[in-house]
Amino acid sequence: MFPNHAQPLVTAPAETAILALLLTEGPLSRVELARRTGLSSTAITKSARPLIDDGYLHELPPERTAPGAGRPVNPLAVTVDREFFVGVKISADALFVTVCDLRAGMRATAGRSLGEDRSPEAVCGLLCELVGIVLDADPAFRERTRHLGIAVSGDVDRAAGRVRYSVLPGWRDVPLAEAVAKATGLNVTVENDVKALTVAEHWFGEGIGTEYFALVTIGAGIGSGLVVNGQLITGAYGVAGEMGHLSIDPAGPVCHCGQTGCVEAIASSDAIRDAVRDATGDEDLDFDGVVQLARSGNPAARDAFARAGRAIGTGIAILVNLLGPERVVVTGEGLDTYDLFGVHIKDAYAAHCFKAAAKCPLTLRPLPWEEWARGAAILGIQALFP
Amino acid sequence: MFPNHAQPLVTAPAETAILALLLTEGPLSRVELARRTGLSSTAITKSARPLIDDGYLHELPPERTAPGAGRPVNPLAVTVDREFFVGVKISADALFVTVCDLRAGMRATAGRSLGEDRSPEAVCGLLCELVGIVLDADPAFRERTRHLGIAVSGDVDRAAGRVRYSVLPGWRDVPLAEAVAKATGLNVTVENDVKALTVAEHWFGEGIGTEYFALVTIGAGIGSGLVVNGQLITGAYGVAGEMGHLSIDPAGPVCHCGQTGCVEAIASSDAIRDAVRDATGDEDLDFDGVVQLARSGNPAARDAFARAGRAIGTGIAILVNLLGPERVVVTGEGLDTYDLFGVHIKDAYAAHCFKAAAKCPLTLRPLPWEEWARGAAILGIQALFP
Ligand SMILES: [Zn+2]
Ligand SMILES: [Zn+2]
Repeated sequence: MFPNHAQPLVTAPAETAILALLLTEGPLSRVELARRTGLSSTAITKSARPLIDDGYLHELPPERTAPGAGRPVNPLAVTVDREFFVGVKISADALFVTVCDLRAGMRATAGRSLGEDRSPEAVCGLLCELVGIVLDADPAFRERTRHLGIAVSGDVDRAAGRVRYSVLPGWRDVPLAEAVAKATGLNVTVENDVKALTVAEHWFGEGIGTEYFALVTIGAGIGSGLVVNGQLITGAYGVAGEMGHLSIDPAGPVCHCGQTGCVEAIASSDAIRDAVRDATGDEDLDFDGVVQLARSGNPAARDAFARAGRAIGTGIAILVNLLGPERVVVTGEGLDTYDLFGVHIKDAYAAHCFKAAAKCPLTLRPLPWEEWARGAAILGIQALFP
Repeated sequence: MFPNHAQPLVTAPAETAILALLLTEGPLSRVELARRTGLSSTAITKSARPLIDDGYLHELPPERTAPGAGRPVNPLAVTVDREFFVGVKISADALFVTVCDLRAGMRATAGRSLGEDRSPEAVCGLLCELVGIVLDADPAFRERTRHLGIAVSGDVDRAAGRVRYSVLPGWRDVPLAEAVAKATGLNVTVENDVKALTVAEHWFGEGIGTEYFALVTIGAGIGSGLVVNGQLITGAYGVAGEMGHLSIDPAGPVCHCGQTGCVEAIASSDAIRDAVRDATGDEDLDFDGVVQLARSGNPAARDAFARAGRAIGTGIAILVNLLGPERVVVTGEGLDTYDLFGVHIKDAYAAHCFKAAAKCPLTLRPLPWEEWARGAAILGIQALFP
């Protein structure tokens, strides 16, 4: 995060536990908080006090759960307007910006196509312009926003705030966090987009309450984010969750990464398009044309989607056999063609799960680009914690 | 663990941290302990006191690190003889038993081939006999042993102390922990052998100090154990680390698990033997015969080992691309034929690692069966902790 001196809001374990529960699960009574955290009611009251004084928590009006059930209880709740968070998603051809409240509710959004100039300087300029626009939507936003998160598809060094590599041309080792922090005056965190979305879904989406959780994205790229024992896996050498580059077929095509038979080399939208171009000899086909062909019953196009579906299903089964997640969320623009390969994904997944691993459900979850920006905003909410 | 009322030795976080560091890293001064745990020197002294009083820790004679370096320091050390732990490995045809001290040093061992009768009752009887023999080796063993760990190849429900399934005939849902606890009077933990060995290597072997660590076993079966953020992955549905059953070749052989193209279906010793039987038409070949053929240059046999090596290397690369371990330890009786497939393992591993994941070193570590029994004894050492 830049600048590096930004302090977390909570540091003591008790405060941390209380705030995390109220953020992710909504209002809870002190008795319920004590039960869930293992702390005494006295400790809950004492730890909640500074958060109430700072305006982050408030007491709801008393509610009596049942007649004669004893003293009325005042549940504690997060004051969602106490602080706001900006999230930015940088995609290959557009920018999406959102302002979220403390419980990750989206309060304002803005999106813009990237122009011809996609250099770091040009994108950074447009980014700051859009951030200005969303922050101007409500005076409270400017007043009470301290954190900005950026999600970028590519290789990100989060600790250093640098984009080592992205799909955008000319983006090599860009000190993005520092540049945006200087321009906006906010504390900036940069993260790989799939990792940011995985943590967002774990905190505020389908992954709530799970200890083992995975998110898989399909489309132009194939990726995954993995949560084990409640924490995102980042890998000892910065590589983890590379579902797109698992080698699953020695006879498969060569991938842009140099390997043979990667999931992505069979199942990305470019790979599907290339397979159909090869089969039909029509080198002018684009992906939309391939989708039309497949939907109209063209065998070569239908075959390419079937192979892609089998590769994705096999890749997810491999992930599940190694990690044993409680559920897997499948998302990404590839869901738009789910009618063409969904059955093959499911069949291959079922065929390749080892024993009880097959109990792990696949949940399809279309997430528009705004949701990816929301995932980036949640990086800021996480910055409240140590 | 059975009985269920066995209490951990340490419960407070400070005591836990001190004991864990001294167990795994050896003697450390209070200053060093304070630095490593983030606790104050006062807290270290206070937390170490009950462990010293109980005889688990003692002070070493003062040592002066450099002339004029101030007050002499008395490093704290684990009293390794304070408690002993029994470990048992049940393999397909033999039993191995060891007594270890507090720092997992093996102090006595015993091994015995299984007889014709491999029923749970017969194996349990032999197990208790061998445990009696090793405990009789020193009066201190009987006096100061409370915990016994058992490592079994197969599907183990550790919490329930039951072996759901093992390679031994007739072993289905065996309440092994309860039976051995009754017969020996010790607290018994049963665990899958690969998982137990993974944790043992993480605490006392090649994995010391790593946050992300994996152990891969090759031979009659192919398996793996995975440590992420310092904890063994167990999977939400009890399945994790199933490296043997990752599907890596749609054109590969059918596995005994029902899938097609599993690593184990290509690379287990039975799979290698079957491939050479098919290629040569010699249905009487056993695995030793196949090894001889390969070493004498027979192309079919050499080919089968090459395919097996590529499958193992690809499987490890998949594991590394998803989890990003700091190092991978490769062990198991398959190392005996490393001369035949080692180069293929390394080549396939290098070819299929994604980018920086290739930095993760493979460490070959031949572990005799006694070491697997030691891994089981370490289950007891872990029982000292909450
Ligand atoms: Zn690739
Ligand atoms: Zn299998």
